[in-house]
Amino acid sequence: MGGDHGVCAVVDGVARAAHKNPGIRFLIHGDSVEIAQQAAKHKSLQDRFEIRATDKVVGMEDKPSHVMRHGKGTSMYSTVDAVRNGDAAVAVSCGNTGALMALSMIRLRKALGVNRPAIAVLWPSLNENGFNVMLDVGADIRADEHDLFKYALMGASYARNGLNIPTPRIGLLNVGTEEHKGRPELHEANRMIGNAARANGYEYVGFIEGGDIPSARVDVIVTDGFTGNVALKTGEGTANLIAHRMRDSFKNSIFSRLGALFAYTSLKRLRYRIDPRRVNGGVFLGLNGTVIKSHGAADATGVAAAIQLAIQLAKLGFTEKLAARIASGSLNSQDIPDDPTETPQNK
Amino acid sequence: MGGDHGVCAVVDGVARAAHKNPGIRFLIHGDSVEIAQQAAKHKSLQDRFEIRATDKVVGMEDKPSHVMRHGKGTSMYSTVDAVRNGDAAVAVSCGNTGALMALSMIRLRKALGVNRPAIAVLWPSLNENGFNVMLDVGADIRADEHDLFKYALMGASYARNGLNIPTPRIGLLNVGTEEHKGRPELHEANRMIGNAARANGYEYVGFIEGGDIPSARVDVIVTDGFTGNVALKTGEGTANLIAHRMRDSFKNSIFSRLGALFAYTSLKRLRYRIDPRRVNGGVFLGLNGTVIKSHGAADATGVAAAIQLAIQLAKLGFTEKLAARIASGSLNSQDIPDDPTETPQNK
Repeated sequence: MGGDHGVCAVVDGVARAAHKNPGIRFLIHGDSVEIAQQAAKHKSLQDRFEIRATDKVVGMEDKPSHVMRHGKGTSMYSTVDAVRNGDAAVAVSCGNTGALMALSMIRLRKALGVNRPAIAVLWPSLNENGFNVMLDVGADIRADEHDLFKYALMGASYARNGLNIPTPRIGLLNVGTEEHKGRPELHEANRMIGNAARANGYEYVGFIEGGDIPSARVDVIVTDGFTGNVALKTGEGTANLIAHRMRDSFKNSIFSRLGALFAYTSLKRLRYRIDPRRVNGGVFLGLNGTVIKSHGAADATGVAAAIQLAIQLAKLGFTEKLAARIASGSLNSQDIPDDPTETPQNK
Repeated sequence: MGGDHGVCAVVDGVARAAHKNPGIRFLIHGDSVEIAQQAAKHKSLQDRFEIRATDKVVGMEDKPSHVMRHGKGTSMYSTVDAVRNGDAAVAVSCGNTGALMALSMIRLRKALGVNRPAIAVLWPSLNENGFNVMLDVGADIRADEHDLFKYALMGASYARNGLNIPTPRIGLLNVGTEEHKGRPELHEANRMIGNAARANGYEYVGFIEGGDIPSARVDVIVTDGFTGNVALKTGEGTANLIAHRMRDSFKNSIFSRLGALFAYTSLKRLRYRIDPRRVNGGVFLGLNGTVIKSHGAADATGVAAAIQLAIQLAKLGFTEKLAARIASGSLNSQDIPDDPTETPQNK
């Protein structure tokens, strides 16, 4: 029911995912009349979904604290609860991010060893597979060194399962790559993530800067939710600015219009490669269950992309793998003595 | 002497600026032989410069704390001191940012009422004049509500003098536009900046998000140096990624190559409009003197752009105007009682 385009975009997205994934069935939560009407338009959904009727909706402006207390009976609550009950393998929502995280926290509970869950996104990059993982992009505005260390473990696990990278390279976002740069908790996290690298099957590249986020230097970018959220939106804003300027430039003369015509397939290919809708889906990590947050402005293509990610993670048993990884990683970090030879930064 | 391209790029940049600004003279600090050799190649520099010979150089990797203690005798020290002595109106350097800020702090001292100076940059935007001002982008990794308030005053003054905007619109960077979002110091700064708007001749639009940085919603973006630095470099990284993808796309087929040929002038125009070298020059605000930090990787075009900005600010008497603004703004903020009608966020 949430999201800027309402039921229509969500059900159309579900229909696309249903068409592409014949073995999958769907639980759709919300206004049963609206959903049934929209679903009837799609042949691919025939006998493939079940409506869980709810009559309350979480608004995009509702405060998370309010939703935590009064959220029962909303479509969002019902969606998360289906994962808790084992009826659904993964939850997908386009709604209010803060409210979704709050409901996920109280219904699914934090995984053992996790203090602050995180939201991870796939960020277009120069890597061969086209993406990097960044977390946290906004689950919490704070993160201490222990949280950042858990983000590293969770991010590595997500890169392994979501992007098929056996030994992900992890970077810690800072204002410089030198050891003395940045806040105290970053220095401590730098040491912890470096020390635990070998035992947890990832490579640690040390501090990275904002310019490295879309680079091929790393696979996973670890940062606090405030910085990550600003960076994510700044990246989107920059892409929008360039797209805008590009349109203006091509409108300018008859030659450039002709150029744009000839360049059409290239521009289309480019748009496909940097289309934010294709990577739609922030994943909540660190809970007893997988929840995917699709962009509020997502259209059917965006919703379908988020569902596709949900299907992949469910098939791989991601939730269980992640829980095991955090548990053993936390143990390892306690067991491993500081070994400077394993930390490139401390050399 | 600093910067990635050394004396050559700097002197070539000075020569371009000299050619464009007949009334201006230059003090060039560093290795007198190298500088003289390079300067001899440019007719525009004839009788227009003076060499201040120094035999030490601040390295790009030197720690600011080390340079603060041992910086005397370096070209950077000499450059800043020329402003202190009144020999130069503005200092321009391509060197180590942290060291330049440290030397500027001890030689020029902080302006009355400023606790943390800031670095402000011009950010390409959808505004009519093509740019927004953002600060702090890395002078300090911390900023409390009082610092953020001073950044607002300084940013407004810079937008007025550097971009000719009589009533700049100021936004405070956060992870959401709702009043309850973000850290406590942001809530307090939100109130302070809002309350002082009318008395200080700017408009306050409230909290903004990363996506608004290149938008036409604001003229000045206020944030702490950690977040600002990450955002700045993320924006640059995103632009690089898109440029890279664009080249790839246009290489793909004979049609798209033909398209690229026809589109050449458009692409050139676009590149001109988003060329980071054209906006080269972070300005240090909050000191008793103006210092401009050019990008370390700046070529002659970049250096010339930074010098052009220096000339404009010097002609306008920017340092004096800014000092007056901070002094009266600080007074005003103490005088003005909380008036919710002046704060859009508190309505």
